[in-house]
Amino acid sequence: MRFADATLPDGSRRDIDVEGGRIVALLPSSESTTSDADIDLAGALVLPPLVDGHIHLDKTLLGLPWVPNQATGNRVADRIEAERKVRAARTVPESETGANLVRQVVASGTLHLRSHVDIDNRLGLRNLHEILKVRERFRDLVTLQIVAFPQSGVLRSPGTADLLDAAIAEGADLVGGLDPVGIDGDLDGHLDTIFGIAEKRGVGLDIHLHDGGEGGIAQLLAIAMRTKAAGLEGKVAVSHAFALGSVPPARAAEAADALAAAGVAIMSHGPGAATMPPLLLLRAHGVEVFGGSDNIRDAWSPFGNGDMLDRAMTIAYRANFRHDHELSVACEMVTAAAARVLGIADYGLRVGGPADFVAVEASSIAEAVATRPRRRLVVKAGRVCARDGVLVV
Amino acid sequence: MRFADATLPDGSRRDIDVEGGRIVALLPSSESTTSDADIDLAGALVLPPLVDGHIHLDKTLLGLPWVPNQATGNRVADRIEAERKVRAARTVPESETGANLVRQVVASGTLHLRSHVDIDNRLGLRNLHEILKVRERFRDLVTLQIVAFPQSGVLRSPGTADLLDAAIAEGADLVGGLDPVGIDGDLDGHLDTIFGIAEKRGVGLDIHLHDGGEGGIAQLLAIAMRTKAAGLEGKVAVSHAFALGSVPPARAAEAADALAAAGVAIMSHGPGAATMPPLLLLRAHGVEVFGGSDNIRDAWSPFGNGDMLDRAMTIAYRANFRHDHELSVACEMVTAAAARVLGIADYGLRVGGPADFVAVEASSIAEAVATRPRRRLVVKAGRVCARDGVLVV
Repeated sequence: MRFADATLPDGSRRDIDVEGGRIVALLPSSESTTSDADIDLAGALVLPPLVDGHIHLDKTLLGLPWVPNQATGNRVADRIEAERKVRAARTVPESETGANLVRQVVASGTLHLRSHVDIDNRLGLRNLHEILKVRERFRDLVTLQIVAFPQSGVLRSPGTADLLDAAIAEGADLVGGLDPVGIDGDLDGHLDTIFGIAEKRGVGLDIHLHDGGEGGIAQLLAIAMRTKAAGLEGKVAVSHAFALGSVPPARAAEAADALAAAGVAIMSHGPGAATMPPLLLLRAHGVEVFGGSDNIRDAWSPFGNGDMLDRAMTIAYRANFRHDHELSVACEMVTAAAARVLGIADYGLRVGGPADFVAVEASSIAEAVATRPRRRLVVKAGRVCARDGVLVV
Repeated sequence: MRFADATLPDGSRRDIDVEGGRIVALLPSSESTTSDADIDLAGALVLPPLVDGHIHLDKTLLGLPWVPNQATGNRVADRIEAERKVRAARTVPESETGANLVRQVVASGTLHLRSHVDIDNRLGLRNLHEILKVRERFRDLVTLQIVAFPQSGVLRSPGTADLLDAAIAEGADLVGGLDPVGIDGDLDGHLDTIFGIAEKRGVGLDIHLHDGGEGGIAQLLAIAMRTKAAGLEGKVAVSHAFALGSVPPARAAEAADALAAAGVAIMSHGPGAATMPPLLLLRAHGVEVFGGSDNIRDAWSPFGNGDMLDRAMTIAYRANFRHDHELSVACEMVTAAAARVLGIADYGLRVGGPADFVAVEASSIAEAVATRPRRRLVVKAGRVCARDGVLVV
């Protein structure tokens, strides 16, 4: 079948011919003849599928009546405690609210996700089991990577290390971590544990790091060093890394060199009040930066909707991006760069590539990032799975 | 006529009875009988009209093909220069693009605006004349206050002072200002001029202040002092005031006390990269804080859409608001607080008040701020002027 008259990211107008779920031709629109069986994109911009590099499918309360935030303070520890209360009051399982969110993100054009899933010694593997159900349910529609995330710390929640290891055995794809110093108060102890599991199981890591300033930088440098020592280059990410935005640029550049040499990627969701990692500096030093939603209407945040073009706009706004080439960086963070970090090899708009894409009402990448455009179509393996923001499968 | 089954901000379900453009009754929905002539709001949350306390109607390029940002640097002066190039290349008058924006903001529920309008010795009063046309065109739909804004400075653009004075004579409502030190390099000279015009003409002021740190605080204190000296308490606002977010809280509190004593209000649009004024601290010290869009798809910014609930969300996100009571503050900044600053006396949902309101798909103020809800209806003087985000007048 043919998706006629697409505007590709390079500005060219092409017909996208699809067979067997793959793109078999990208001919100039003017040279082709159309038939009634074609879907006319009428010049809509076509992007490869959006990629969410950091979501929490088990935390969202999406689809439930409004739940006010209950944290009694602004520290990470306060929010962890508040989440316990919200979780205890839940009447709908995480597999259902997680599915609500997956449906919403697919409708906005996201087909690949990395979700952290809470694991601690009270929860055990319950949330993992719920989100494994979501993965199974949507297996034909989305790639869902799962990070075994020690939300309550590793050392301060005894037994969590074994649970993280068991989580990988049961299907989680990566080992997570959380503020080795800020939460566990033991940099080496925390990193020994999570890198140990990753090496044993032959998987990558994605570590939450909120700790700011020099303390945060020291943890980033330690993560880079251990990544090289473990031979895990290209398989480790640090999420948030606010510290990179809270030190002088020269110091951030030193950290960037270490991260780049170790192949450690940095995820930013464009935080509201925390400091923003210097994205262009990081890229200039060779660090892969990618985007993610982070919390979506959960015990942590009332905000968020899982739309990665909206997220690219937030990232761009916080990064002070205004020029088209800067807005393109934000777009890359939620498409190709995130796909690289997630290891989605079969990705991109090209002849021979998967017929996965999203058609949006914009004339260019820059406009798509700056204007939160309507999603006309989302296509997975050649099949239309959402129209005008509404799931149709 | 009756707008049946509204959820008011206090959570009560009411029918809104309207006669002669005013609200004549707010009866509990359960106690009333409905007729076919009623409009059923089906429990939608009804808010008083949104108020945009800071917009630039003459700058927007809304409705035109995408115009890439052309600034060669990140200083205010670089952006002023880039705007000259964009302006020179314009083929559509500001009255048309400004009208595009007014239509869009009304469709989102905004019925009162304060627009800054560029005035300098190259432009003269041209932009003012264009935006006066917009005011006339939409006079039955929106309140449009105009600030005579010296975008190129007052002293460094000789002749601007006379132009600002002439602008007030021709219909501008307030005198503007711009970084007395950062742009004009002369705090007293700048303030002498703009306060002089305001006193002579008997109008208020709204001054752009981007200058950060102690330098910015000194300018805020000088503005507060002059406001009291001129007897202009309650008629002066400072827009942006990034400085308040770049000094220690104790110093911001000192400045807040001075601003509160002088009745100087502070406008924030929730800046992307600049520091955020400490909104709760300012309010605790008695300062009126209000919201505005600032630039919308113009030579300064590729972002923005004029939706003040979206703006409230940006403000809340940047201010780290997460609790319902904090989200309510963000809502107040784009409704009642902005109405107070603009001096819109005939405002608010009450029996005897104007039948002006917006019905949104949310269950509470907090949800309305956090979720960018669909606008079901916008009503002005009892007349439906937009439905589902589309203008119908």
